[in-house]
Amino acid sequence: MAIYKAPLRDMQFVLNEVFEAGKLWQSMDATQEVTPDLADAILEEGAKLTENELFPLNRSGDEEGCRFEGGQVFTPKGFKEAYQALSEGGWMGLGGNPEYGGQGMPKMLTVLFEEMLYAANASFTLYPSLNNGATLLLDSHASEEIKAKYLPTMYEGRWIGTMCLTEPHSGTDLGLIRTKAEPKGDGTYTLTGNKIWITGGEHDLAENIIHLVLAKLPDAPPGTKGISLFLVPKLKVHEDNSLGDFNNVNCGSIEHKMGIKGSATCVINFDGSEGIMIGEPNRGLAAMFTMMNYERLSIGIQGLGLGEVAYQSAMDFSRERLQSRAPTGPKCPDKPADPILVHPDVRRMALNARAFNEASRAFASYVGMQLDISKYHSDETQRKHAADLVALLTPIAKAFITDRGFEATVEAQQIYGGSGYCREWGAEQYVRDARIAQIYEGTNGIQCMDLMGRKVYANGGEFVRLFTKDVREFLAATANNPAMQARNAQLETELVRLEALTEKVIAATKANPEEIGAAAADYLNLFGLVAYAYMWAKMAAVAVEKADSDTSGFYQSKLQVADHYFKRILPRTLALEQQVLAGAEVLMAMPEDAFYTHLQ
Amino acid sequence: MAIYKAPLRDMQFVLNEVFEAGKLWQSMDATQEVTPDLADAILEEGAKLTENELFPLNRSGDEEGCRFEGGQVFTPKGFKEAYQALSEGGWMGLGGNPEYGGQGMPKMLTVLFEEMLYAANASFTLYPSLNNGATLLLDSHASEEIKAKYLPTMYEGRWIGTMCLTEPHSGTDLGLIRTKAEPKGDGTYTLTGNKIWITGGEHDLAENIIHLVLAKLPDAPPGTKGISLFLVPKLKVHEDNSLGDFNNVNCGSIEHKMGIKGSATCVINFDGSEGIMIGEPNRGLAAMFTMMNYERLSIGIQGLGLGEVAYQSAMDFSRERLQSRAPTGPKCPDKPADPILVHPDVRRMALNARAFNEASRAFASYVGMQLDISKYHSDETQRKHAADLVALLTPIAKAFITDRGFEATVEAQQIYGGSGYCREWGAEQYVRDARIAQIYEGTNGIQCMDLMGRKVYANGGEFVRLFTKDVREFLAATANNPAMQARNAQLETELVRLEALTEKVIAATKANPEEIGAAAADYLNLFGLVAYAYMWAKMAAVAVEKADSDTSGFYQSKLQVADHYFKRILPRTLALEQQVLAGAEVLMAMPEDAFYTHLQ
Repeated sequence: MAIYKAPLRDMQFVLNEVFEAGKLWQSMDATQEVTPDLADAILEEGAKLTENELFPLNRSGDEEGCRFEGGQVFTPKGFKEAYQALSEGGWMGLGGNPEYGGQGMPKMLTVLFEEMLYAANASFTLYPSLNNGATLLLDSHASEEIKAKYLPTMYEGRWIGTMCLTEPHSGTDLGLIRTKAEPKGDGTYTLTGNKIWITGGEHDLAENIIHLVLAKLPDAPPGTKGISLFLVPKLKVHEDNSLGDFNNVNCGSIEHKMGIKGSATCVINFDGSEGIMIGEPNRGLAAMFTMMNYERLSIGIQGLGLGEVAYQSAMDFSRERLQSRAPTGPKCPDKPADPILVHPDVRRMALNARAFNEASRAFASYVGMQLDISKYHSDETQRKHAADLVALLTPIAKAFITDRGFEATVEAQQIYGGSGYCREWGAEQYVRDARIAQIYEGTNGIQCMDLMGRKVYANGGEFVRLFTKDVREFLAATANNPAMQARNAQLETELVRLEALTEKVIAATKANPEEIGAAAADYLNLFGLVAYAYMWAKMAAVAVEKADSDTSGFYQSKLQVADHYFKRILPRTLALEQQVLAGAEVLMAMPEDAFYTHLQ
Repeated sequence: MAIYKAPLRDMQFVLNEVFEAGKLWQSMDATQEVTPDLADAILEEGAKLTENELFPLNRSGDEEGCRFEGGQVFTPKGFKEAYQALSEGGWMGLGGNPEYGGQGMPKMLTVLFEEMLYAANASFTLYPSLNNGATLLLDSHASEEIKAKYLPTMYEGRWIGTMCLTEPHSGTDLGLIRTKAEPKGDGTYTLTGNKIWITGGEHDLAENIIHLVLAKLPDAPPGTKGISLFLVPKLKVHEDNSLGDFNNVNCGSIEHKMGIKGSATCVINFDGSEGIMIGEPNRGLAAMFTMMNYERLSIGIQGLGLGEVAYQSAMDFSRERLQSRAPTGPKCPDKPADPILVHPDVRRMALNARAFNEASRAFASYVGMQLDISKYHSDETQRKHAADLVALLTPIAKAFITDRGFEATVEAQQIYGGSGYCREWGAEQYVRDARIAQIYEGTNGIQCMDLMGRKVYANGGEFVRLFTKDVREFLAATANNPAMQARNAQLETELVRLEALTEKVIAATKANPEEIGAAAADYLNLFGLVAYAYMWAKMAAVAVEKADSDTSGFYQSKLQVADHYFKRILPRTLALEQQVLAGAEVLMAMPEDAFYTHLQ
């Protein structure tokens, strides 16, 4: 059956040994009080909560799904109590601003707790995840008054945030939205319009739902430059924060989906709802990007969490499943057959999943670290440097982690054989739940375009050079370690490949703007592979120092999985490089009608 | 929404232009009467049946699923009538032996009809597909008396066959089965045991169900050398072929699965059921392989069919979906945005799916052609040559077509964005329905082992040389065509890569038997890519001759998709080669316990 145990040992390894988080935290005022011991204690408590309260609701939530009845949404059995436990434990404000009642924990730590949440119950986790993004947005862009009014209650989990962007005709292309916001003259606005795919748009978990809504003012310029942002509560909020009348925010229906069935995906109609503007008129999309970037990393972590729980469950299965004998002769001659992990091809699938998961964990922490530096560091140059790295790495974190997470769930399902396809074993749910992470929050294609266009081409590769410089500093620091020479040499080769390819795509794009989209997906995947090679090299550099004196096998395993990554996964860059170099022409040559011949 | 139109033009291209099937058919006694006109007429009628009768039941069948009640299985609404239409149209015996009422159509033709069936309704198609395999098995291994008794009724579809192999503890490793067959003394046997995952093990489509069951005689030697094969009808069959008493074949339950929900996957209990032995005692597994090899190609075609319908539906969606502008400026300035196919990355996904689908179609036909030659050719050397190629290519047809089919359904789903995840659009069903094809009928891992171990290593690469010789004959025949030089050179490079890798794996395996399993998956994928390159080169060689004078655009598109394949897909061999060369050590180094650390 499916099992889940939070990988605390590996989380502590990443936090304390690979990135030495304690030192960083101590060096910044805002995080000075976060000691490694405190971080450990938080992770241990988080493990208990996710393993004991959320994981047991994962499959039942999938079987039951959300129910829509009379305009109301009912979450699966147990979700409400679990949400209460999360709220009462203070987890809803874990990364929140302490000035308004948040716990102020660094992102580097909260990404690890998020991983546990998604692993234990991805559907459930979307509710708090949206709230985290919404509070971050308000903290960054709302007035003092609004922050004081909304943040404490949202950190408590009594009110919960959503993100209302998409309309039926307007998904990726937000310039097309039609939802209107008309000024009432008293500083508030009346919102009218239809939003779709609103995660947690309506449900029974919290006392109130705080929608953050993109809409257009009557005189707004067309396109994305005419989008404003509004806070629209489901129930109106009185001055004393008591709840008032229904604010005409109607749930029209919920979607029937491939997976994440415990997450309510709603049609939300604003039928003359009262809203407050957040930030400047017509600058709403920029403000919303604060939330979207947060959610993009979060959704990346959804991919990781599902990859991890899928791996763990497949290993549980593989230990019990006896089929055939090892190629070198029986390993368990007293049993009718050997456990399936004696077969090299089963190990290949398991190691693929594990190599992705552990690199994804390190990479998410690395991005979390840059987020913390960009927010809390005393030195402006350092903040800027980290913020630029975050901008570069966010689309990779979203797309590459979710692509590898999906791949990990598929590999894990395959290890089960036929049982992997039967619902009772749980493996197939992870595949279905992971698939959405590649689609929502900006499809992975959009992430690839964002990386290639805005984060690479637009600055002539400047952000890429920040990244390669960081890697080269690591290479220089470990250059004298003979145990690292082979890995470092391979990493250097890949860096050179990435740099050369970056230059070529930039040059090609100057001649033809279609080159960005043509290169985007393969370029992001190649970049992701190089970034994961960096993570594996960093992890190996710690492990080589400790493997000999270690009796637990932890560090030895790290080196073995690192080997698998370098030898059996990293070569994928060879193919991706050629695919990028193939350029746009081959993609654009076929006339559009030739794609539709069957429709004639 | 989902749409399906049988790709008749492409099927005719493959059949008549690429492989010149008419010439082959005319050269062999058994197929002499099959003219291209007859084949066309059959495909056109097949298209009508699948588009109009089966496709409309696809999504409703998925939503409704099969129902298990009081030991009986009820298929989704409409399945019974559709099955009747299929039976009455003579389609159940399309490839059957004419001596017993079959239509005797060549495999090369029936693979194309099978593709239509799977594309239109994969769940439904499993019922007739199993019957095709069962009748083939009986035709090859049963006595004259049994053939005369069972085949005509099974070709009529009034009785329908199944395949009963797996038991709860015994999937891949059939040597472990426990189902017993005890001789009654009158030439019949009493079967007792539990089988699981029996596709179509019980349902309401036909008058009787004919189970082909693997079981052990009381004195059977252990392992796979002690397996015999039995025919066990659900209802006993009198001498005059009228139906008699219930034969104690009980359906215990049906599985709840990720997909193919209209296909009943049954627990079947033989509770003292009467059976007849087929073939020799203890030689049942070899006989069953006649059916399994048939089903393996058939399941490959399931991957193709689902890839095709997913592609078609995604293109339908993409034509209507307007989001953002083309990178070079508006293509439809009169509309609020351009159709999404203006974006290179959307085209990349569409072309990937299409390049796979069209190569899979050609490859399935190529394998079908070898099957026909191996069965019907007058020259024994030719028959042997073709049979050896079939042995080599069957695992590739099963694993590579289904892997690429799954990839195609995922690419197609991604083109839809969020709609791809919502059930109403149908794209997500194709992903779920395609996923099983990588798992059942021998997991794709098992196919890879079969290729690497039995089909490559065991004969020292002899079968591989038959294949490369065939490709080199094509290369020689087109060597003087300047339009083919670049493609041919790339194909030759890939052939050399395949040959060198084959030699290396054979050599490595002599030193370490684990090398087979370590290389298997990547080797099969590399082989598949080379085989598809051969298919694309063959298709291109026809198209280059006709593209200039063609106004339909068909041949021009062929060359453009071929280009996409050669430039943006085939480079994957570079990565796979390195992964194979990495060898077994990296996979086997980690102690088993290190995979299970979270279970401690």
